[in-house]
Amino acid sequence: MLVEEMISVHKMGEKAKAASRSLATLGTEAKNAALAAIADELESASATILQENALDIQDGREAGLSEAILDRLLLDEKRLGDLASDVRSVIDLPDPVGVEFESRVLPNGMRLVKRRIPLGVVGVIYEARPNVTIDIASLCLKTSNAVILRGGKETLRSNLALVAAIRKALEKTGIPPDAVQYIGDPDRALVEELLRLDAHVDMIIPRGGAGLHRLCLEKSTIPVITGGMGVCHIFVDDSADLERAEAIVENAKVQRPSVCNALDTLLIHRKVANTFLPPLAKRLHAQGVTFHAEPEALSILEQTGGIACQAAQPGDFDQEWMALILNVRIVDSLDDAIKHIQNHGTAHSDSILTNDWERANTFIDRIDSAAVFVNASTRFSDGGQFGLGAEVAVSTQKLHARGPMGLEELTSYKWIGIGKGHIRN
Amino acid sequence: MLVEEMISVHKMGEKAKAASRSLATLGTEAKNAALAAIADELESASATILQENALDIQDGREAGLSEAILDRLLLDEKRLGDLASDVRSVIDLPDPVGVEFESRVLPNGMRLVKRRIPLGVVGVIYEARPNVTIDIASLCLKTSNAVILRGGKETLRSNLALVAAIRKALEKTGIPPDAVQYIGDPDRALVEELLRLDAHVDMIIPRGGAGLHRLCLEKSTIPVITGGMGVCHIFVDDSADLERAEAIVENAKVQRPSVCNALDTLLIHRKVANTFLPPLAKRLHAQGVTFHAEPEALSILEQTGGIACQAAQPGDFDQEWMALILNVRIVDSLDDAIKHIQNHGTAHSDSILTNDWERANTFIDRIDSAAVFVNASTRFSDGGQFGLGAEVAVSTQKLHARGPMGLEELTSYKWIGIGKGHIRN
Repeated sequence: MLVEEMISVHKMGEKAKAASRSLATLGTEAKNAALAAIADELESASATILQENALDIQDGREAGLSEAILDRLLLDEKRLGDLASDVRSVIDLPDPVGVEFESRVLPNGMRLVKRRIPLGVVGVIYEARPNVTIDIASLCLKTSNAVILRGGKETLRSNLALVAAIRKALEKTGIPPDAVQYIGDPDRALVEELLRLDAHVDMIIPRGGAGLHRLCLEKSTIPVITGGMGVCHIFVDDSADLERAEAIVENAKVQRPSVCNALDTLLIHRKVANTFLPPLAKRLHAQGVTFHAEPEALSILEQTGGIACQAAQPGDFDQEWMALILNVRIVDSLDDAIKHIQNHGTAHSDSILTNDWERANTFIDRIDSAAVFVNASTRFSDGGQFGLGAEVAVSTQKLHARGPMGLEELTSYKWIGIGKGHIRN
Repeated sequence: MLVEEMISVHKMGEKAKAASRSLATLGTEAKNAALAAIADELESASATILQENALDIQDGREAGLSEAILDRLLLDEKRLGDLASDVRSVIDLPDPVGVEFESRVLPNGMRLVKRRIPLGVVGVIYEARPNVTIDIASLCLKTSNAVILRGGKETLRSNLALVAAIRKALEKTGIPPDAVQYIGDPDRALVEELLRLDAHVDMIIPRGGAGLHRLCLEKSTIPVITGGMGVCHIFVDDSADLERAEAIVENAKVQRPSVCNALDTLLIHRKVANTFLPPLAKRLHAQGVTFHAEPEALSILEQTGGIACQAAQPGDFDQEWMALILNVRIVDSLDDAIKHIQNHGTAHSDSILTNDWERANTFIDRIDSAAVFVNASTRFSDGGQFGLGAEVAVSTQKLHARGPMGLEELTSYKWIGIGKGHIRN
């Protein structure tokens, strides 16, 4: 099981590159057959997988992990079944590889086209979530990319069992098992070794906190997709439909507070602050939200009474809460709201609630985030919601892909020029 | 003139970010007016620019730079006029910024679209070529990107004079001059400071040799576009039209040997080696080409007589020659040719000369380069030739852009979601 530990990361890179060349020649049918085999194997290996997961959970409990984290680590019959059906649903997604686009004939008669190709080898470094192992492996396989995985040490046994099942399925369907490799040695130096494998690895996706992203930026010689960190804002303009606004703010903050597209900071136009904030605060308070408010907003909240609130501390407005905490600030104008977002945002997802045509357009124009919404919850920033069928990561950088990344974002392209003896003048 | 030296690179980053926000709100007309003003200013400041350039040339000569390099540094009335008209031709290129694409309506009724936006701030580190200063500044301006430039020290005075002209023109047309800044201090530590400005700079483009690219990969915390290094191959299949093949190989090697898309290695199918190589060798020899050949090819060249040739040394096949040197190797099959390219190529530009349908398609499928050609010279790998209207760089990496990069590749996108009070279930 732990065979991967024995092999140097460099060697894994070479094997991944070789596997990626085989993968690049596979048709969609072969890849789909492998995905089906993986789903089956996850089910037939479920006893082993759940047993290894139980050991991880036991260790985690002994190490004092919180119940919330343990729940994220936990696999059971149902969750494993869901994972298998997630893999099966990737079968139905369109395969972007091989599609040609932007075809043209140059004035000299040469035919030129771009063809979508796999990236090659993807390295993914992630926190302790066994579902990511399956997600990423199946999306990479569908796009003919080899992948080197490195998950959190808290799920090492679960991940090794999952990867063993995947590799067995690959082998059964005639695909090089090195298409999916796992760095099982918990030595952190191996992560840095992976980050420097630019000879073999084409892209690094970190899925975790700010520290992991920073590590990748600092140490990687491979292009890194950064993202996933969202300090998300909603600006409630004085022209907004306040009833709808309440529902949207509630949705953005409460529906799933632990994710990156959840609301962190509410900016309210001064003209509606006294009308809007008190009923909203009551509604959110009832669901366990605590407010971190600037003095003016704080005084409204205190006057409202019975609201869990405190003065916003320096740094609060730069915080991705991932919890039932909401920053509140009252602003004088759209311009103030935009400046606040420019200064404190992470270019993830921001929304304006308004009925003013010009302000809506100004917000769209000037807010430079991966996703900008009008009269909608920031929670829509998501590959599934956007109809991409899958989500590899959410990028907040400008290069390659921005916002939710689906299958197409796991591809590159090559130019193909078809001549008839063409030489350049 | 040297005012930029006084300002820390960090401060330059802040100013560039602020300028980029103004640029993002400019319409195409305003940007075109500024481009016209830059072209005019280059002409009216020509005396100063040429004077500063003369000092650079004088220093370069004293420092013992080769005539070839001095010629690259040199500006004269004619070259400066050409630079001004290059700027004017950027006016005619379509502005990619603001264009919306992939519009859709989600099942829940939300309208979703991607809008092309500027990258923000681009950092460009380049060798001693004053024309790059003008090229990059005008392409960045056209795409509403602010730019921080750092050119080779041999053209410091010329570059500062050019940047002063650009900034004057920007000021005249009401655009923040900090849209174009130049790091004038020759201290190399400032380059590393620039490479770590991820808080303000969105992309780094190195234009120079392998050492510069490596430095950027190692030190940059900002996404880097690597490329420009081309070990380019042509495989002459036994089914090729050999007369055309001669002309194509000659064109790829001789037409402009000092550039990245020039031919470095010729692979010849064994069946046609004896027929094809001798006349080709005579033709190229007459134009000053020296052959570095593997034993079999070497013996053919020696039998041909009168050809400048030598045994290929280890490493020759991994060399980007940039000169009238051509590696030659005889291969047994298409498969051998593909393996050679996979082992020695830099994923830049490779071509197959063939009349065999299946082999042509196999080559296209299996060669993983930015540009793959059939029956054409590798020299076509170029933004101008591909009809992009301009070329910022040639990327050989998989992320963001591949091959020649034009204006569109200087942009990113944001998602815009238009709701009607949408909340997520």
